[in-house]
Amino acid sequence: MRIAVDAMGGDHAPKSTVLGALAAIKENPAITVVLVGDEQAIRNHLPQDIPANIEIVPAAEVILPDDEPVRAVRRKKNSSLVVAVEMAREKKVDAMISAGNTGALMTAGLLYAGRMDGIERPALCAYIPNTKGRVTLTLDVGANMDAKPHQLVQYAVMGSLYAEKVLGFERPTVGLLNVGTEEGKGNELTKAVFPLLQEADLNFVGNVEARDVMQGACDVLVCDGFVGNVLLKAVEGAASTIFSQLKQEFTSSLINKLGAAILKPGLVRFKKKMDYAEYGGAPLLGLKSPVIKAHGSSNERAMKNAIVSATRFIQQDVNEVIQQSLQKNTLGESE
Amino acid sequence: MRIAVDAMGGDHAPKSTVLGALAAIKENPAITVVLVGDEQAIRNHLPQDIPANIEIVPAAEVILPDDEPVRAVRRKKNSSLVVAVEMAREKKVDAMISAGNTGALMTAGLLYAGRMDGIERPALCAYIPNTKGRVTLTLDVGANMDAKPHQLVQYAVMGSLYAEKVLGFERPTVGLLNVGTEEGKGNELTKAVFPLLQEADLNFVGNVEARDVMQGACDVLVCDGFVGNVLLKAVEGAASTIFSQLKQEFTSSLINKLGAAILKPGLVRFKKKMDYAEYGGAPLLGLKSPVIKAHGSSNERAMKNAIVSATRFIQQDVNEVIQQSLQKNTLGESE
Repeated sequence: MRIAVDAMGGDHAPKSTVLGALAAIKENPAITVVLVGDEQAIRNHLPQDIPANIEIVPAAEVILPDDEPVRAVRRKKNSSLVVAVEMAREKKVDAMISAGNTGALMTAGLLYAGRMDGIERPALCAYIPNTKGRVTLTLDVGANMDAKPHQLVQYAVMGSLYAEKVLGFERPTVGLLNVGTEEGKGNELTKAVFPLLQEADLNFVGNVEARDVMQGACDVLVCDGFVGNVLLKAVEGAASTIFSQLKQEFTSSLINKLGAAILKPGLVRFKKKMDYAEYGGAPLLGLKSPVIKAHGSSNERAMKNAIVSATRFIQQDVNEVIQQSLQKNTLGESE
Repeated sequence: MRIAVDAMGGDHAPKSTVLGALAAIKENPAITVVLVGDEQAIRNHLPQDIPANIEIVPAAEVILPDDEPVRAVRRKKNSSLVVAVEMAREKKVDAMISAGNTGALMTAGLLYAGRMDGIERPALCAYIPNTKGRVTLTLDVGANMDAKPHQLVQYAVMGSLYAEKVLGFERPTVGLLNVGTEEGKGNELTKAVFPLLQEADLNFVGNVEARDVMQGACDVLVCDGFVGNVLLKAVEGAASTIFSQLKQEFTSSLINKLGAAILKPGLVRFKKKMDYAEYGGAPLLGLKSPVIKAHGSSNERAMKNAIVSATRFIQQDVNEVIQQSLQKNTLGESE
């Protein structure tokens, strides 16, 4: 298995990407990781004797986090992100991973990797941690702003299969993000999607309210890309605001620092529970080649786990399974 | 000023509503509060000598939190919520407040109080606390699921005037909830709304991402009712999940309890900062009569503050100001 990693993408790249790659091949020597990016910068984090299953493919440009995605992908054709996606398209690798500019990855994925047959719109997934000690695979979180009902059904099918095959959730429950749990709630889109999800071959558990997502109300949460993006950023924003405010309180005096020191193991345990690094990266589903988006703040462990996710994506042949399921459910047709 | 309070609405009613009313008339003797509901239950929380500016209007029925809103409003015509809204329509009171079933309040508001001229859809507001020590007035959070661009502009005008006149925010900043801060981001709705908000007579600061709301990116946040509802419940859900998980960690051992005891004043201070009770209740804007929705978990202080908000709503003649502003901005027309 060959996996291309955009070595320059992410807040801690290329250190995080290179060390993550080394950790991944140590865990699974059957993987070859192709690090794409600035050769010297990559070599700085590699041992003198580069392991046989680490390859470097030079790419002179880098797409920055603030680059306008479409323009960046079109202009920076020699960027680490675009080169890595192209390698996936050309089957030089079996999958690619980037912790870089999300919009650029979606654009490059669409432009170069291309959509799977029958999929109108790929969906970007994200993991939202929940109190059941696992994550809720949420899609779409921003690939497609104005989704149509049957597209949400495609998301459900793709997300459900990914959760089963890659995350190892048995018969994953699928929920529809909505403003109330009763049938008939919602906007035009969710009202139209609800009966379609009931009919589909899914473990559909009905509508799920945003406040119940972190309680683990479902394994796979389906929504349009606009709403999913708002949900994800609202959860991230609330968590980061609360933690930074608490930190401020906990360090506001010597005695508070003492209290915080006592509680530190519990805080660390809690933070670990909420840590998505365990799950590595979330896929961009619906593309011909497996493409994984790792979180921008990914550390070495998150990158290693993203690579591990990619290997399961490949080994379980998730795209083929999705393709078969779509044909069976005849969900591929346009409305 | 006469304000009707649905004495039976809310998790802690009628104790919270009655004690809140007593606190409000103590703070401002110019207010008369009309408590609507089960007379005996109300009297149980009143002193023997009922103050002159507390009135009781009996209502035999109660709309429960889980009642289906439309059916409940149609069938329970003698419920405290419906009777209180009717009193507002008949001008027997100047405003009404309920901490009860939100859907029923919206339904009764539309059905009995009626829409202001030129307003197609009323909007439900909510307060999201932010680190600037005040709140973000967010609308719509669930009154109207499929909003049109000009309706969002009406929300912006109404919310901005309410924030200025009732919350006392000077020249409140208005943001459009979106998936990115750049112009041109978003779904069809937000793309269409953006230029309209730029043209309107507002302190429009552009797109605001969900993650920046709690950082106080704007005073008034505009969105459609579906997205607003998801945002609000995501923030509430994340906060409640984090706090309950932390509580679990903090009480998991004797030594942790000691640490937590040391930090308690800081935790209390933080919780107070995030407490919406200070702001009482959020309005349902766009109705002919002032209608305030207090949070379901409102305590005495929240109810008192909701009553105080209602008095400002009346004194500042917010509905009249909104009406004038809509005419000036000619935003009243249908598209």
